[in-house]
Amino acid sequence: MLGERILLGPGPSLVPPEVTAAMAAPMVGHMDPDLFPVLEETARLLRQVFQTANELTLAVSGTGTAGMEATLLHMVKPGERLVVCSAGFFADRLIEIGGRIGAEVVRVEAAWGRPIDPADLERALGRLGGGRTTVAAVHVETSTGVLHPIADLARVAHAHDAAILVDAVASLGGADLPTDAWDLDACYSGSQKCLSAPPGMAPVTVHTRTRGRFRPATFYLDLEGLWTYWGAPHGYHHTVPVSLVYAMREALRLVAAEGLPARVERHRRMTRALWAGLEAMGLELLVPEPHRSPTITTVRIPAGADDAKVRTRLLREYSIEIAGGLGPLRGQIWRIGLMGYSCQPKWVLALLGALEAVLTAEGVRLPKGDAARAAAARL
Amino acid sequence: MLGERILLGPGPSLVPPEVTAAMAAPMVGHMDPDLFPVLEETARLLRQVFQTANELTLAVSGTGTAGMEATLLHMVKPGERLVVCSAGFFADRLIEIGGRIGAEVVRVEAAWGRPIDPADLERALGRLGGGRTTVAAVHVETSTGVLHPIADLARVAHAHDAAILVDAVASLGGADLPTDAWDLDACYSGSQKCLSAPPGMAPVTVHTRTRGRFRPATFYLDLEGLWTYWGAPHGYHHTVPVSLVYAMREALRLVAAEGLPARVERHRRMTRALWAGLEAMGLELLVPEPHRSPTITTVRIPAGADDAKVRTRLLREYSIEIAGGLGPLRGQIWRIGLMGYSCQPKWVLALLGALEAVLTAEGVRLPKGDAARAAAARL
Repeated sequence: MLGERILLGPGPSLVPPEVTAAMAAPMVGHMDPDLFPVLEETARLLRQVFQTANELTLAVSGTGTAGMEATLLHMVKPGERLVVCSAGFFADRLIEIGGRIGAEVVRVEAAWGRPIDPADLERALGRLGGGRTTVAAVHVETSTGVLHPIADLARVAHAHDAAILVDAVASLGGADLPTDAWDLDACYSGSQKCLSAPPGMAPVTVHTRTRGRFRPATFYLDLEGLWTYWGAPHGYHHTVPVSLVYAMREALRLVAAEGLPARVERHRRMTRALWAGLEAMGLELLVPEPHRSPTITTVRIPAGADDAKVRTRLLREYSIEIAGGLGPLRGQIWRIGLMGYSCQPKWVLALLGALEAVLTAEGVRLPKGDAARAAAARL
Repeated sequence: MLGERILLGPGPSLVPPEVTAAMAAPMVGHMDPDLFPVLEETARLLRQVFQTANELTLAVSGTGTAGMEATLLHMVKPGERLVVCSAGFFADRLIEIGGRIGAEVVRVEAAWGRPIDPADLERALGRLGGGRTTVAAVHVETSTGVLHPIADLARVAHAHDAAILVDAVASLGGADLPTDAWDLDACYSGSQKCLSAPPGMAPVTVHTRTRGRFRPATFYLDLEGLWTYWGAPHGYHHTVPVSLVYAMREALRLVAAEGLPARVERHRRMTRALWAGLEAMGLELLVPEPHRSPTITTVRIPAGADDAKVRTRLLREYSIEIAGGLGPLRGQIWRIGLMGYSCQPKWVLALLGALEAVLTAEGVRLPKGDAARAAAARL
């Protein structure tokens, strides 16, 4: 068994003790009649956090990438067009999976660290011919820390009769995501970020208008098949990971108990405090303030600091996990997540203190600003 | 939280306390350097239980059906031929998934409750033209309780230059499965049956000769992609369900501590004792003795007994789960699993006693034989 970690990377987040206890409950069968109300409560709580009335709302038995693949397979028939709003690693993954499942993929791009401009999507859709189009966009791009303007992108998509599918892996439960108010066609997430359940389940919701169009080239990730199990009368589909369902339900109960608006505000407040602390330390944030995610922060690695060495010292000397950059941002940035149970005042201050200590020990010259005081004033 | 259950259905099985404790360990990141040795130990222990030297041996982040789909996607390119040895519900699932992923599916059939005759496979393969062929067979068909003659089917497949893929969901860790000695091309299983880990991971192993043929139409279930994470140097693929990896490793350590031959013998002995008890009670087993699985037993529902009512009483009055039949065997049989941690003398006797009591209370006339004594003599 590994030592305890303070998980402040882009996920998984720390798991509350109530959720761990729920996961360790005695095993029951996936067809046990007493499990069915647990599924129903989980689906109901997922609808609350997705802010949707969509019937087909469930947790896929796999991690966030399984949710991505299941939703793409549900939305995009082979040969149909998939327009990906691409400005990071996980948008690239949408492109990769789109290609593998036979979609005709079109990219609308922005630089990594900047949001997609809805006018660019508008132009791209205007240039395309007829035929069904699905637009895919990432709400919080985990690789860059950008919060993309989903409401605007959805409006543009619908104005062109395109469907819109949203990756909410790093936002659901931590940033406002009104699925129905934004009129999204489909949305997926992961259990292990702002919801603070263990990794292994992927919440998904799809609008009625997307349903029954065709039979996807998958059985395990077929959302209609999964719904035959999650929805009454609960026919057999596959053996769900019962322990993770228990954990997910408990995590969602904690979200409901806190209240979604209060939870979103907590993420916003803690993350702003982190920004203030990092900037007081003289570090530069990658993303301009209006486009920063309230869940994942990206900070440029200062001159003189060794990426891997700093992260290793944080892990070994302070048990703190943060992450490095992906793709073109490798070696350029660190990624700090304050999500779910990891999003607490004590961890903001612990991280700022530890990072300052490690950078100083590594000989990086920092200004005399007091990071902890700057952050604490905003917590 | 539901009450405790004695899980004697076709899975999930009871989970040993050591495995539950391992699952509840503090969360760590999927890229934590200290997690990589855990992955490597898990893969090494999986090779032991699969009795293989195959490098690409790992646990897919999904349940048994995910293992089935991942392995089919790895083995069978769209348009290639898939010959399914079909005599039950899970063989039908292979056919279903094969169809969805674009395979040209051919069936070789036997009645549900009887094994596939290798001579029938021989004839079917002899009739087929050229082109790559994969034969798929189910080792223990969970829906019928039949142990299929995999060694013979593999010999026939190879004699016709076909590859062979084996479903070991209900046998791995409970019945002998010498992957290399039988020269299998690929094999998959589930975590929640004879291995007694919680559901949510699917052990898979594939032979080197199956690798690198083509890029499958999946990202999440792409075994080569998964191997980039499970194998050194452990690049990022997706966020594995860390808690379930811990649980799986602990479950496999328990298998290694018991010793695979001793474990297989335990399953054989307990299940034979169950047969003796059921027959002493005057009940009839579905499968002729030479073809019976040592892990799952199927027994005909006696005249006068109401399938659902008897199972409900077992669950409500004795906290015992067994399962009904699937497909054409619905209402005809009960399925009793003695797998992993559920395969213990006390549960054999508890089940026999409870079943006798419920059947008697339901007015079913049973002969005067002493089921418990008949079983206990063989435990």
